[in-house]
Amino acid sequence: MKAIKLFERASRTYSDSSSFSKLLVVFTVSGGGLLAYADANSTSPIAPPEIKKKRVVVLGTGWAGTSFLKQLDNPSYDVQVISPRNYFAFTPLLPSVTVGTVEPRSIVEPIRNIVKKKNVDVHYWEAECFKIDSQSKKVHCRSNQNIDGKGKEEFVVDYDYLVIAMGARPNTFNTPGVVEHCNFLKEVEDAQKIRRSVIDAFEKASLPSLSDEERQKMLHFVVVGGGPTGVEFAAELHDFVKEDLVKLYPAAGKYVKITLLEAADHILTMFDKRITEFAEDKFKRDGIDVKLGSMVIKVSDKEISTKARVNGQVATMPYGMVVWSTGIGTDPVVKDFMKQVGQQETRRVLATDEWLRVEGTDSIYALGDCATINQRRVMEDIDSIFKKADKDNSGKLTVKELQEVVDDICERYPQVDLYLKTKKLRNIADLLKDDSKSSVEISIEELKAALKEVDAQVKNLPATAQVAAQQGAYLAKCFNRMEEAEKNPEGPLRFRGEGRHRFRPFRYKHFGQFAPLGGEQTAAQLPGDWVSIGHSTQWLWYSVYASKLVSWRTRSLVVTDWVKRFIFGRDSSSI
Amino acid sequence: MKAIKLFERASRTYSDSSSFSKLLVVFTVSGGGLLAYADANSTSPIAPPEIKKKRVVVLGTGWAGTSFLKQLDNPSYDVQVISPRNYFAFTPLLPSVTVGTVEPRSIVEPIRNIVKKKNVDVHYWEAECFKIDSQSKKVHCRSNQNIDGKGKEEFVVDYDYLVIAMGARPNTFNTPGVVEHCNFLKEVEDAQKIRRSVIDAFEKASLPSLSDEERQKMLHFVVVGGGPTGVEFAAELHDFVKEDLVKLYPAAGKYVKITLLEAADHILTMFDKRITEFAEDKFKRDGIDVKLGSMVIKVSDKEISTKARVNGQVATMPYGMVVWSTGIGTDPVVKDFMKQVGQQETRRVLATDEWLRVEGTDSIYALGDCATINQRRVMEDIDSIFKKADKDNSGKLTVKELQEVVDDICERYPQVDLYLKTKKLRNIADLLKDDSKSSVEISIEELKAALKEVDAQVKNLPATAQVAAQQGAYLAKCFNRMEEAEKNPEGPLRFRGEGRHRFRPFRYKHFGQFAPLGGEQTAAQLPGDWVSIGHSTQWLWYSVYASKLVSWRTRSLVVTDWVKRFIFGRDSSSI
Repeated sequence: MKAIKLFERASRTYSDSSSFSKLLVVFTVSGGGLLAYADANSTSPIAPPEIKKKRVVVLGTGWAGTSFLKQLDNPSYDVQVISPRNYFAFTPLLPSVTVGTVEPRSIVEPIRNIVKKKNVDVHYWEAECFKIDSQSKKVHCRSNQNIDGKGKEEFVVDYDYLVIAMGARPNTFNTPGVVEHCNFLKEVEDAQKIRRSVIDAFEKASLPSLSDEERQKMLHFVVVGGGPTGVEFAAELHDFVKEDLVKLYPAAGKYVKITLLEAADHILTMFDKRITEFAEDKFKRDGIDVKLGSMVIKVSDKEISTKARVNGQVATMPYGMVVWSTGIGTDPVVKDFMKQVGQQETRRVLATDEWLRVEGTDSIYALGDCATINQRRVMEDIDSIFKKADKDNSGKLTVKELQEVVDDICERYPQVDLYLKTKKLRNIADLLKDDSKSSVEISIEELKAALKEVDAQVKNLPATAQVAAQQGAYLAKCFNRMEEAEKNPEGPLRFRGEGRHRFRPFRYKHFGQFAPLGGEQTAAQLPGDWVSIGHSTQWLWYSVYASKLVSWRTRSLVVTDWVKRFIFGRDSSSI
Repeated sequence: MKAIKLFERASRTYSDSSSFSKLLVVFTVSGGGLLAYADANSTSPIAPPEIKKKRVVVLGTGWAGTSFLKQLDNPSYDVQVISPRNYFAFTPLLPSVTVGTVEPRSIVEPIRNIVKKKNVDVHYWEAECFKIDSQSKKVHCRSNQNIDGKGKEEFVVDYDYLVIAMGARPNTFNTPGVVEHCNFLKEVEDAQKIRRSVIDAFEKASLPSLSDEERQKMLHFVVVGGGPTGVEFAAELHDFVKEDLVKLYPAAGKYVKITLLEAADHILTMFDKRITEFAEDKFKRDGIDVKLGSMVIKVSDKEISTKARVNGQVATMPYGMVVWSTGIGTDPVVKDFMKQVGQQETRRVLATDEWLRVEGTDSIYALGDCATINQRRVMEDIDSIFKKADKDNSGKLTVKELQEVVDDICERYPQVDLYLKTKKLRNIADLLKDDSKSSVEISIEELKAALKEVDAQVKNLPATAQVAAQQGAYLAKCFNRMEEAEKNPEGPLRFRGEGRHRFRPFRYKHFGQFAPLGGEQTAAQLPGDWVSIGHSTQWLWYSVYASKLVSWRTRSLVVTDWVKRFIFGRDSSSI
């Protein structure tokens, strides 16, 4: 969920929370009656008869969960949010937090603040879900902290709809020693710990009685993973050292070394080649040692061992601190739930349909980093499609018949649309003409032939904040219109069933992606392969990130932090 | 070292560090040659012959140590600073940090930043002094952090002059359970922990499955100690709950209780009675339960037990969090050093003479909370005083003879001056006249009789930031002029020896003291018993504190924090 992207429409809604008006919003905990044991009381005999609200349970307060909560505005739901973090964190700024360019508190917003002004009943519990029981529609939770004499409080929450947005764990690829000795960069606490470790390393290395070798080791910072997070952290660390720390620790300067290890042949492989090249060149000039094709095979308390992909050569180097940033792995609770609903254990994340509903369930949704959309293949449904399109049951499709369903096909199977765009064709009829020239009617075989390459266009969405936020907003809009959509379905034709789908399937809009490279330079890859690199892009980065922040409070704080850094530099107090 | 006072001249110097000019100052660690083992190299044969710099070691980076470092500007010293905290913290704002009115980082400034622009060689080591060896003039230090494979690094530093400014520990009066279960409020980390605990308590109490009793217990905040720190914390906590938390945790509001326990008959006993009364009334209106005459005798993990001073009745109450703020106790290292130099172990702090030199040593100084000035009594020296004044050795003092030494007496024994002021007398001759009417000459007995009540005026200085900062500045000025003063002593006559003292003794100037009481109201006691209470005093408090902050960075950050709090309230994210 690392890389932030540009102009993301889905998260625009984050902007309009006015923190200025200080209204005490009445959302009493006792009001909802959503809890298992509270049920008995909720049907009090004197209460006027009212429609029982549907109970929605949201797991997680990251990008997906928060975006869902922000957009949900149908008061016919009673919502309970369960997350060990009582705040939303603007994760794209975590690398800035590691070195104090931005303060941790500037990028977080209490979830209670985010939901308090809604017309929907939302309750939040600071707890971790440790088991999802989809059979009896219950979620088992455990409080974050000990309750005296009871240990951690456990409780059960019932749901009608469950929204799983629990995110993911860092992926260690089971490399020995990683969990014990490496820093991760997924949570605010991780960033705080890294910041402290960097200062500690400089203080340690300044002690009077050490050898040069020891100082070198302490000030050797290793970053594993050349993705956007790893690269941005390496760049931020380099700036912190060069712009601030060497001034206060002049003797330590000559011992500092930053190494970036990447298993692939290049860093930032998800970006355009021009960006990759620029970044590698810049890091070279900056003295950041980028070791490509270098797989980490072991981390001990003192050394990190790598194997070169080219010749299998094993190398070992002493380090002071390692930051591990190589992608995401599965949360154990999600893993357990996958078993329950019959999904393959080899999967990395939960599979959902195109409406974000978990496959094998009917009232559980999953979004963000813990889920992936399993796009239905055209070839699986090709017979049904043909049959539905062939209205006169002639066994042949006319172009007219096909054109009548073409919009539904493109909506249900976006890969068709994508394929047409790639081939620069106007519509599906062109595809047929292209293939079968002047034939007015086509058989199922001809249709199959025409569409045979289409499914290759299916790609999994990246695990980014942009995707998660769009999914949360999409799902909230579906929930908002659930009743109307039941009566007037908005979605495409059901090719394998009757009628139409209730909603249009989720469609991701990519607005571009940034890669800050340090020294007030940023690379950006915008839609349409437009690439922009340099100081002006850094300013674009500043303005986009400022506009994307969750509230006026965080926005003003982050901007203040930036200004403060320009004027005073970054703080090096060890707190 | 809690209470901050007004217009404190000594710390004015903190204001003028301009952080805007970003100059890389050359103070190489290897330059000083101050280290024990570095000594061998420091007399390199090729180096030009130069006067060996005096080695000054400063222990501590609190108010006293930092103030000393700021004012020291004689380049003939080589200074080494040893402290486990690599920053100076503006401790008077700690109660504000506990609830997020001010951010922790806004009140700290790296010590390296404070000393870097000086013309004096200053080196800082992040380490703790664990033993002072005054025999061989060495300080034994241990690094804060583990060095791999070696545990904590230990090293030894030689000194010519030692400045002990290590502060003090919280005083638990050996009450059982305090160390295990209470929060203190002396360090920035303490304040951060308290803030986290308050939010945690609200989150815990909001969990769905708890009893009313459990919620009440969790939200019972107990403050032990009705001094300025305890009172300010209770007031800040009350504001935080009332202004921010009840809006986000509406159901928890009714369970919150704040109790303030004070063993004496009133809170804020060091202040004017009007302030005490106002504070007690205000707390009553605010619903803060002030229990006077209530001594804590035991703290368990769930309950706190008190004994009423009046009738010895023991009461026990369950609590969610306790903050312990009852004054200061001795640091074990200081305790051990007191033994070495033959000071009584029953003393709470190091005794120094009026020039801040530790009694029983000749090159060790102690200042701030770890020391107290042992003011010489006039009666101890009365014979010497008489003899020195009686120039013609007549056995009688004329008023003229007395008047010749009266300034020296008043400077050496400030209690005389104080006594005269209390009695509203112009000078010592008036005292004699008053006593012995028209006698022109007085005997030693008559002098003794005239001065017999004078020593009752001797009072220990309070353990405040104001005292510590003035002492640091005073000592630095002495160090700056050490050589000149050797030749031209500036101090008063040595009554028991020959010549004059090198320096005037330290004299404390009290500029007043604030007691913030919450709800934008503050009480202030200014010199001359001028008392000011209310909203306007809060604004005085804002401006004085802002002006006292250590740097332009901290100043602008704290003011930003205040503005932020006015607009957005305090953050309740659990980080």
